Amino acid sequence: VEIGGVMVGGTVCRVIESNDAGLAPGDYVAGYTGWQRYATAPAKELRKLDPSAAPLSTALGVLGMPGLTAYFGMTDICRPKAGETVVVSGAAGAVGSIAGQIAKIQGGRVIGTCGSDEKAAHVTGDLGFDAAINYKTTPDYAAKLRELCPEGIDCYFDNVGGEMTDAVIRNLRTHARVALCGQISQYNLEQPETGPRLLFQFVVKQAKLEGFLVFQYSDRYAEGLRKLGEWLKQGRLKYRESIVDGLENAPRAFIEMLRGANTGKQLVRVSGE
Amino acid sequence: VEIGGVMVGGTVCRVIESNDAGLAPGDYVAGYTGWQRYATAPAKELRKLDPSAAPLSTALGVLGMPGLTAYFGMTDICRPKAGETVVVSGAAGAVGSIAGQIAKIQGGRVIGTCGSDEKAAHVTGDLGFDAAINYKTTPDYAAKLRELCPEGIDCYFDNVGGEMTDAVIRNLRTHARVALCGQISQYNLEQPETGPRLLFQFVVKQAKLEGFLVFQYSDRYAEGLRKLGEWLKQGRLKYRESIVDGLENAPRAFIEMLRGANTGKQLVRVSGE
Repeated sequence: VEIGGVMVGGTVCRVIESNDAGLAPGDYVAGYTGWQRYATAPAKELRKLDPSAAPLSTALGVLGMPGLTAYFGMTDICRPKAGETVVVSGAAGAVGSIAGQIAKIQGGRVIGTCGSDEKAAHVTGDLGFDAAINYKTTPDYAAKLRELCPEGIDCYFDNVGGEMTDAVIRNLRTHARVALCGQISQYNLEQPETGPRLLFQFVVKQAKLEGFLVFQYSDRYAEGLRKLGEWLKQGRLKYRESIVDGLENAPRAFIEMLRGANTGKQLVRVSGE
Repeated sequence: VEIGGVMVGGTVCRVIESNDAGLAPGDYVAGYTGWQRYATAPAKELRKLDPSAAPLSTALGVLGMPGLTAYFGMTDICRPKAGETVVVSGAAGAVGSIAGQIAKIQGGRVIGTCGSDEKAAHVTGDLGFDAAINYKTTPDYAAKLRELCPEGIDCYFDNVGGEMTDAVIRNLRTHARVALCGQISQYNLEQPETGPRLLFQFVVKQAKLEGFLVFQYSDRYAEGLRKLGEWLKQGRLKYRESIVDGLENAPRAFIEMLRGANTGKQLVRVSGE
């Protein structure tokens, strides 16, 4: 984002005016129009929403990019088999919360990591994870993971990076799969961190790691949204939203999100309509 | 290896006595019988060799585990497409030398890293790599790789780890594939090394990394040996051997190999027969 440019971000908008036959004033669309009250966009970059099918806000969460990110990372890269052990970092966030629930649907045993006891209770109590680790109060991540995953970790869906990821890598099981979705612990450091060299773990465990961006799956979004929509309707996917009111509060909400203050998808309500 | 136990290692042996119908005294076999003059082994763990097909020593190199390691890592994990840029670390070693030549056969542009000007000349002159980097005399690996691979690195076959691997990761191209075969720079350290955290590179490049052990491909050894044998016969694979005489010199040869003194496969000649 250039200084003075529009900050990027996914949005739900109501159409005011349209030159495209498929969109009429009053229609709701999901797009990527950024932090602004009014925007223009090519119709092909907008996805028309059915407000009767699900709350509009889900188009930015479980039925939007976060849900699709969780879906493809878990089903395409991690691919947990029934009975396998899955760790999800950032488990109370918009992506991790869905990723872990998908792993449960696929029969995995799922451990989530998060940054407060409240989030840990949400992850196990509301979302159905088998266990949660509050990284802020756990002194030895690797020891805790060994305790919770005595046979090792088959799948890791990583949103966070840093020391938790080190600890997971040390506890990978043979033929483990790691999906790298984000490394949020590393984004705002004043000095780049160093860490232990752990690549040899991937050799001895014959393990795979794959970084991904949801956009690489754009030709399969329809499949992902259909599956996520089914699971949501069946009550198998729960979600939370953290909502702040007013576009002027978007910067603060964004910074708080990077600090881990939110649970589930962080949204900014720009208009009550 | 337990103290007092037999040091592990691949061997070519002549059969003295056999209870198996498929092996007769005088036959040559490849096995994994370790550092000893005489050994017993189940026939199913031995591979009968045809001494007229290729020199017996190739069963420990290009037509043995090193060749198979190179073959599966390159053709199954790296999978270079014609015109792609491939980097091989430890390029003058038993595995790297074959891995790079296989990448050339598959149409890749291949850069090897090694530890002396003599090895660099061997890698480009004899083995046909497009370029070589002597890591001992190159001050800035990342800058050198940027110069040699201006569009980024599509495939990396890593035997070495450490700073060279950091530099390669920083120069990966979108959709890159990394095959982790070994991390020889890390094996004999008195203190484990730390390094920069680079996993986010895999996210933004949508890149994959996979560690492997040749044994996981045991049901495809016949395929690998057939292909390697064809390429060898066609003159498309060159190989070198570093040979020391006498079992008593095996420990020194092993230590020198870890230090990078050898070119190609390090062998110990136990008997002239």
